[in-house]
Amino acid sequence: MRRGFDTDEYKARLTRAQTAMAEAGLGALLLTTEPEVRYFTGFLTRFWESPSRPWYLVVPASGDPIAVIPSIGAALMGQTWISDIRTWAAPNPTDDGVTLLADTLRQIGGPVGVPSGAETVLRMPLADFDRMKTLAEVGFCGDAGIVAALRAVKSEAEIAKIRHICGISGRAFARVPEIAGVGVPLSRVFRDFQRLLLEEGADWVPYLAGGAGPFGYEDVISPARDAPLRAGDMLMLDTGAVWDGYFCDFDRNFAIGPVNDACVEAHERLLEAANAGLKAAQPGALACDVFAAMAALVGAGETAGRLGHGLGMQLTEGLSLTKHDQTILRPGMVITLEPGLELRPGQWLVHEENIVIREGGAEKLSDWAQKLPQV
Amino acid sequence: MRRGFDTDEYKARLTRAQTAMAEAGLGALLLTTEPEVRYFTGFLTRFWESPSRPWYLVVPASGDPIAVIPSIGAALMGQTWISDIRTWAAPNPTDDGVTLLADTLRQIGGPVGVPSGAETVLRMPLADFDRMKTLAEVGFCGDAGIVAALRAVKSEAEIAKIRHICGISGRAFARVPEIAGVGVPLSRVFRDFQRLLLEEGADWVPYLAGGAGPFGYEDVISPARDAPLRAGDMLMLDTGAVWDGYFCDFDRNFAIGPVNDACVEAHERLLEAANAGLKAAQPGALACDVFAAMAALVGAGETAGRLGHGLGMQLTEGLSLTKHDQTILRPGMVITLEPGLELRPGQWLVHEENIVIREGGAEKLSDWAQKLPQV
Repeated sequence: MRRGFDTDEYKARLTRAQTAMAEAGLGALLLTTEPEVRYFTGFLTRFWESPSRPWYLVVPASGDPIAVIPSIGAALMGQTWISDIRTWAAPNPTDDGVTLLADTLRQIGGPVGVPSGAETVLRMPLADFDRMKTLAEVGFCGDAGIVAALRAVKSEAEIAKIRHICGISGRAFARVPEIAGVGVPLSRVFRDFQRLLLEEGADWVPYLAGGAGPFGYEDVISPARDAPLRAGDMLMLDTGAVWDGYFCDFDRNFAIGPVNDACVEAHERLLEAANAGLKAAQPGALACDVFAAMAALVGAGETAGRLGHGLGMQLTEGLSLTKHDQTILRPGMVITLEPGLELRPGQWLVHEENIVIREGGAEKLSDWAQKLPQV
Repeated sequence: MRRGFDTDEYKARLTRAQTAMAEAGLGALLLTTEPEVRYFTGFLTRFWESPSRPWYLVVPASGDPIAVIPSIGAALMGQTWISDIRTWAAPNPTDDGVTLLADTLRQIGGPVGVPSGAETVLRMPLADFDRMKTLAEVGFCGDAGIVAALRAVKSEAEIAKIRHICGISGRAFARVPEIAGVGVPLSRVFRDFQRLLLEEGADWVPYLAGGAGPFGYEDVISPARDAPLRAGDMLMLDTGAVWDGYFCDFDRNFAIGPVNDACVEAHERLLEAANAGLKAAQPGALACDVFAAMAALVGAGETAGRLGHGLGMQLTEGLSLTKHDQTILRPGMVITLEPGLELRPGQWLVHEENIVIREGGAEKLSDWAQKLPQV
């Protein structure tokens, strides 16, 4: 499968952004985070792991985006479709790109929309932001949710990448019997499962969670403990693996030897709930409708706070399957269905699949879990 | 090796913070990022990969920290030494913890210091920050660099974890001949090297960079391409692997078959520069002194912008080895020495080691590279 996107993909994104910016009366967008910058440029690097340098992209009301970045990134940015690349030698403790960014924004003109709503972060020091705003001599405001709305609806090329990493993870899950069993420490299962994901073709594994216990797991965010798996445990592994910058996010449960009937039944119910979510995920339905279809079978999943969410360039992004979320489902939205059941107080089973909304009804991206596998 | 820290470690961090807060006249610190929250609590999870939920820690001028977090994290936070844990069901589109945080800060009292300097990020939506500030009815300001200064000097327990992950990575580097050679695609080397790191005991691999070419590599931040290694290439792999929440960050170069003399000589010079940095990294010296000792041998490394940096809970944190940085080296600071040489225009060789500053002179944490290995 080919990496990257054609330049047309980025131009289409830019056109959609500029159309929305015109409606919102914005002179520019200022973007500072990895997915936002990558969305408009294709700039893909794990170097964002280092917090030491800020990176900026300015999307003007017309014309192509302008990268304002540390010189260490110039070569890589130069391989994207972006031609206006302005650099400084970072880190610079007295002026870490502040003047260069302010000059650029003053030249482009405001008002400058900065993503400020749910899930957004301004990835630059607050003190630099304040100083830059003063220097730029333009107005600043939110981005009216423009970037999040654009990213929520995926192109076919993006969907293909998510399907590809779902396939990789599906093959890794199928190999879990190689690495899990009675007596194996959960921490070793975690380590080996990441290895399986890499062997099956993942570029890297930014996220792995899971748990194990006779009535499920206490939570789904803890790091793995060294305690060995015991006969009768339910083991769950939940990944966030990446291929070419796109995530999958689904899990699988495994019975470590025979497990109690409550677990088997709960697992069946979770699969039913995922199927109900799949059916409800029609274009035009609301996120809360899909939530309701699953919650009718498994309850509201109070601990996790939601029964699924959008995904794509980030592990989670966009809508949440909660009773509150009124987001209208549109073709091209990629979401997870993540029903959970509390078997004992504080002991949970969770199941998760990935789908894309289509005109005729949702399409499965993850291979669909069937009967509870025993290892 | 034991995971986690004794509660005394956290209490000592808190005492140091509160002493500095008293000097700065702060009523509280508001922390929002993974390393900041973990530094004071021990809350360790890969769940921060999801941008959907904000997490807050309030460090009062006296008394223990207060966690203000989504309910999905309550069980895990409950296993730390923190007892005052206030939760809400996130994500909530109308009030995503804003009121709960504002109430907490109003109760504790200001002024509230928010990390705002170099390398810091406010990990919450800007719109929520503005609303919360109004609701809290206390003053807000920067944190006077308190958190960064605390984190820069590591305890023996922290240093032991960094030494442990350095050892793991050293063993993985020693196995590179198993996975690299003429004809192997660089992308496969990257994938397999992550596997080796996991096999040798890394919990996960947040960062991997590298490159290959006959006179070095164009940059050190690009993802791996599928192009196969050729005879005469210099291969470099640079990791960021993690054990129990602490990073190593060093690299190794490998000759793919015989390489040209310029590469061999440059590699020797890089080792000399690292040794010069090691010698210069005395307590009381400045970051710029260590830079100068290395730059005298290899130049200023204009593209990367620095010849090393602090590390610990993040891949890079704290001081930069540049001509600007006046940070005084203190025992317990862990830093990288990262000299680079430009062999041809735009073609670089980079070498990196990890050390800790000690009273009697710096101690090596990474096994020290010797002669250029050929695979």
